Amino acid sequence: MTLLRPPGLKPGDTVAVLCASSPVSSQEKLEAGVRALESVGLKPEVFGTARDAGSQYEYLAGTDAERAADLTRALTDPQYAAVFLACGGYGAQRTLELMDWDRIDAAAPKAVIGYSDVTALLEAVAAKLGWVSLFGPMVACSGFWQGPEEYDFKELIKLLYRPATVTELTFPGSRALVPGVAEGLTLGGTASLLAAGFGTDTSYPARDAILFLEDVDELPYRLDRIFTQLRRASYLDGVRGVILGTFTECGEPGDVETLLAERFGDLGVPVLTGVNIGHNCAMQTYPIGVQARLDTAAGTLTFLDQVLADPAQDTSG
Amino acid sequence: MTLLRPPGLKPGDTVAVLCASSPVSSQEKLEAGVRALESVGLKPEVFGTARDAGSQYEYLAGTDAERAADLTRALTDPQYAAVFLACGGYGAQRTLELMDWDRIDAAAPKAVIGYSDVTALLEAVAAKLGWVSLFGPMVACSGFWQGPEEYDFKELIKLLYRPATVTELTFPGSRALVPGVAEGLTLGGTASLLAAGFGTDTSYPARDAILFLEDVDELPYRLDRIFTQLRRASYLDGVRGVILGTFTECGEPGDVETLLAERFGDLGVPVLTGVNIGHNCAMQTYPIGVQARLDTAAGTLTFLDQVLADPAQDTSG
Repeated sequence: MTLLRPPGLKPGDTVAVLCASSPVSSQEKLEAGVRALESVGLKPEVFGTARDAGSQYEYLAGTDAERAADLTRALTDPQYAAVFLACGGYGAQRTLELMDWDRIDAAAPKAVIGYSDVTALLEAVAAKLGWVSLFGPMVACSGFWQGPEEYDFKELIKLLYRPATVTELTFPGSRALVPGVAEGLTLGGTASLLAAGFGTDTSYPARDAILFLEDVDELPYRLDRIFTQLRRASYLDGVRGVILGTFTECGEPGDVETLLAERFGDLGVPVLTGVNIGHNCAMQTYPIGVQARLDTAAGTLTFLDQVLADPAQDTSG
Repeated sequence: MTLLRPPGLKPGDTVAVLCASSPVSSQEKLEAGVRALESVGLKPEVFGTARDAGSQYEYLAGTDAERAADLTRALTDPQYAAVFLACGGYGAQRTLELMDWDRIDAAAPKAVIGYSDVTALLEAVAAKLGWVSLFGPMVACSGFWQGPEEYDFKELIKLLYRPATVTELTFPGSRALVPGVAEGLTLGGTASLLAAGFGTDTSYPARDAILFLEDVDELPYRLDRIFTQLRRASYLDGVRGVILGTFTECGEPGDVETLLAERFGDLGVPVLTGVNIGHNCAMQTYPIGVQARLDTAAGTLTFLDQVLADPAQDTSG
């Protein structure tokens, strides 16, 4: 069953821009990403964690408490219509360690958008709040800061502004590792982060899921270890279908394909590979928590429910 | 309560030498390690997995089925008095995926010796068989192949041949991160492997443990992610004390110390750091599954039970 759907956005909405993980790689890129949001009529407010250059550890944006506070404020304050993550990196799990979800549970669902390390946050949003969220581009990353004409940005904005029009994702260059059709709840994200959540209370079980996986910068043996943990931890038991995105900087592409075929080819469910979601590609936004149908022959993921609710009516006049 | 103790060894014992993970880095080193075993009167038998050069994937010794078969034979055939792992690397978890523990459970306990990736196997030996095992040097690794005068080798052989004499480990260069005395069951190993076991049926809970941790070649943010998973997965809840070994190739030593202090300093239990167990040091053998007392002021781990049973009497004559 589709999780609670946040509304889409409309021009004039104020949105939060923050970091739950590492500092942005440059303030210039962040500013360019912010201008992209402004170019479509949104009013981005940049939180302190997106300005921090690594004051506690160089790989963390602000302190754990600062990231948890920014995230809590962005999720609970109704003035923010959505929460855009500025970048990934590392640290979302430290942020989660300090989150008080009971404080947030009463808030109305809003869109939370990010990927990579933010996978841990999207899982928590599903596990703790029961909201649909978006595995999509981030403000200080290339598909965003390079400008409003970027594919990643346009696909995301189309979904946010006109959710009723996005009924399907198509994957032109994809290939069936295992052919078939399957229906389930869209889940998943960056595989290393899913595994690093095992045993925690924000991990979201993948039973009955259409499971999306991608990763970056994991040597082949590390990727193998991650996939093997997914298997051995029974995480893949009952998965209905698998969608495999980009696995760049993970060794020779041919070796990765061999590994993917070997670790996911025997599950007895449809597996589609070569999908343009993830690191280092012009990426589509993948919603987390929506009932959908995977068809490997067509190379499509069809949503059985609208991904986001229609944007709230402007009641200000 | 101390787990089931395998007996120590005596000259003339036949022992198995095999890989559960990656291929050995060189057959010459393996041979030198084998000669070290022979030099103290053991009869090492080298299994096929220790001869494989990476026939399935370059990072795996043989196929998963071959590694599981070698390990099963070594554990169950009474002619082998102990199981020496030749090296670590990656792949023990794939081996575990194919193990049929019910076949092995009836066997008498025997010493299983290795570290690094083999942590996953030692955990399984505790979880599935309830045996004490040894986090110690491996046959094709430096503390072994450099010859029988190496500290690592001598410490291991002393424990195996005269278990009654090894009542305590002392850690001369160690420092108390949190001072105190604690008693518990010795558990742990290479931290990344413990985390990679979460969610699987061979993970062994650390409640009431004296928990040893070390790691190698994990960038600071990766080490942070591992430690944060240990925390968030409630793995550290109820731990009685922590022993921290080597963390080499993990970034600046000062940064690592800061991280260790921050991630383990607030648990409310004694923490001893700078212990000579793990990668890239002249290492002592750390038994898994023995009741022991940690004293950070003395820099000692005192065993409350004998680590191994006395070597079996030679009944052949």
